[in-house]
Amino acid sequence: MTDRIAVVPGDGIGREVVPAAVEVLSALPVDIEFVEAEAGDRVRDETGEALPEGTVEVVSGADATLFGAAGETAADVILPLRAAVGGYANVRPARAYPGVDALKPETDLVFVRENTEGVYAGIESEIAPGVTTLTRVVTEEASRRIAEFGFDYTEARGDDVTVAHKANVMRTTDGQFLDAVRAVADERGAAHEEALMDALAMHLVLRPEEYGVVICPNLAGDVLSDLAAGLVGGLGLLPSANVGDDNALFEPVHGTAPDIAGEGIANPVATILSAAMLLEHLGHDEEGARVRSAVEAVLEDGPRTPDLGGSATTEDVTDAIVGRLG
Amino acid sequence: MTDRIAVVPGDGIGREVVPAAVEVLSALPVDIEFVEAEAGDRVRDETGEALPEGTVEVVSGADATLFGAAGETAADVILPLRAAVGGYANVRPARAYPGVDALKPETDLVFVRENTEGVYAGIESEIAPGVTTLTRVVTEEASRRIAEFGFDYTEARGDDVTVAHKANVMRTTDGQFLDAVRAVADERGAAHEEALMDALAMHLVLRPEEYGVVICPNLAGDVLSDLAAGLVGGLGLLPSANVGDDNALFEPVHGTAPDIAGEGIANPVATILSAAMLLEHLGHDEEGARVRSAVEAVLEDGPRTPDLGGSATTEDVTDAIVGRLG
Ligand SMILES: CC(C)[C@H](C(=O)O)[C@@H](O)C(=O)O
Ligand SMILES: CC(C)[C@H](C(=O)O)[C@@H](O)C(=O)O
Repeated sequence: MTDRIAVVPGDGIGREVVPAAVEVLSALPVDIEFVEAEAGDRVRDETGEALPEGTVEVVSGADATLFGAAGETAADVILPLRAAVGGYANVRPARAYPGVDALKPETDLVFVRENTEGVYAGIESEIAPGVTTLTRVVTEEASRRIAEFGFDYTEARGDDVTVAHKANVMRTTDGQFLDAVRAVADERGAAHEEALMDALAMHLVLRPEEYGVVICPNLAGDVLSDLAAGLVGGLGLLPSANVGDDNALFEPVHGTAPDIAGEGIANPVATILSAAMLLEHLGHDEEGARVRSAVEAVLEDGPRTPDLGGSATTEDVTDAIVGRLG
Repeated sequence: MTDRIAVVPGDGIGREVVPAAVEVLSALPVDIEFVEAEAGDRVRDETGEALPEGTVEVVSGADATLFGAAGETAADVILPLRAAVGGYANVRPARAYPGVDALKPETDLVFVRENTEGVYAGIESEIAPGVTTLTRVVTEEASRRIAEFGFDYTEARGDDVTVAHKANVMRTTDGQFLDAVRAVADERGAAHEEALMDALAMHLVLRPEEYGVVICPNLAGDVLSDLAAGLVGGLGLLPSANVGDDNALFEPVHGTAPDIAGEGIANPVATILSAAMLLEHLGHDEEGARVRSAVEAVLEDGPRTPDLGGSATTEDVTDAIVGRLG
């Protein structure tokens, strides 16, 4: 069966790392049809639209999407695309790799971020001159759904679950979030810890090795997963998945890196690991595992891009990973 | 002139570290009248009220307040007390000290956190079964006020200003925050950088030495300052001030530490440094500086409590600091 994969490189280094990941996918014995589509600053400058309707259609109609990054239009592009695939769960693994300099080499975290509501519900207004409001929305339904996803994910991984919240201040909304997670945990007889997001930020910096899966409201997941990128050596290694019921979008956590875009030295690892998540999502577990092992082998003793202290190009690293696919 | 200082030890180690700080203040040639008042779980268990009206009166009527920590009633106690002093600016220095093990020994940050609105405005409701909302409020007035405070503070310190925000998602509310900061910066011809709070979380972990003063919306300041505590070795060293137009409240950033409360081994440094901020706020700059130097000397080669790897008691550390007041 052919998998139809939408490929949306976007802007900046997205245009370098997405082709690298496509090269890796193409080297595997899986039958993929790639359909490319545009989104971001570049297509906005050309056509006036950062997210053309055609791109949304390609993404909606595909089995999964590989996205790169978008520039100043990032929010206009990625939030609707996440919605287009129904991606309610944003999964962000953050682990340190042997051979890569990390502030906290024992880090092996996975953030499971609620991806549809919270402050991202985006209901804002200026209700009087100089007085603005945003309505943060938290529902039982979405909270239960992310909790179910998080506990399923954890069961597969065999890990601890921590739930991040700020229910001492956001009593009703994060209270709703916590209640839903507790109910799901109870129904399953699953253990979980609860942590205030501020205290958790400190504990993750001090002792990330004590944590496993962290289920988070939307903004908490956004901030804590970036924090964790700092612990493992930066954003160049962090993949992510936006998983919906019957579609999904995969993207590196990093952005367009305008400072190095076009130089051919962007680290392709985050996007290649996102492609590994895509493979596993589509049931190609063995191929996903092969990509992961190849990446790990190259990170351990292969060429590395400047962000990891090396002087290799995107192409060098990609070739090395393809060469190690085994 | 006698300064009238309200002293609210609260719960847990608050009852150990606040007396320690009072001991240090009492050893200085400043004329202080201390007025003690209760707040927290303990007084709630006795009287049914976590924050007795009498305590609010004492705090409102004092020249400044030294607060310890409160247990599960923390939000019920500290948010109204911050409001009682009109504390619109929450100032949280986070620096590493020579001699103290820190993940990032070059850290020397000050968070200037907006302390009156954002999600802390606390307007929440369950608008339908399982559907909850919180109204985040950001006004031009409060945003300008914290910006003015932040730039004043920075001028005195001679540092860089970074403004944290998430205006790519919270376009109207954090947009308002950013606009106000930009307007104040323009009026003063002051430089500032802007940073998305998620990216900033990562950058602070990787390169805290590149940042100085960070002006933040309320929740961003809450989370980022705790993150910074992780960089400098934990919460035991972080003081804070809640500054209003004509009153102020000073408190350690840490909580009640129930695991060690009552053992006499709590680290009093965060509260003693909060007392130094209190002295400076009341115009006793020289005495504030003496306390700071004494703390630094003791951190460098004096006794230390177990959280810093020592085996000294709260009393030992306090005595050592008093002994070094010079
Ligand atoms: C670009 C932005 C809307 C996005 C988010 O906040 O989710 C980004 O920060 C991320 O984490 O992927
Ligand atoms: C106890 C809580 C309400 C408080 C806050 O969120 O401000 C605490 O986390 C702090 O930072 O002092």
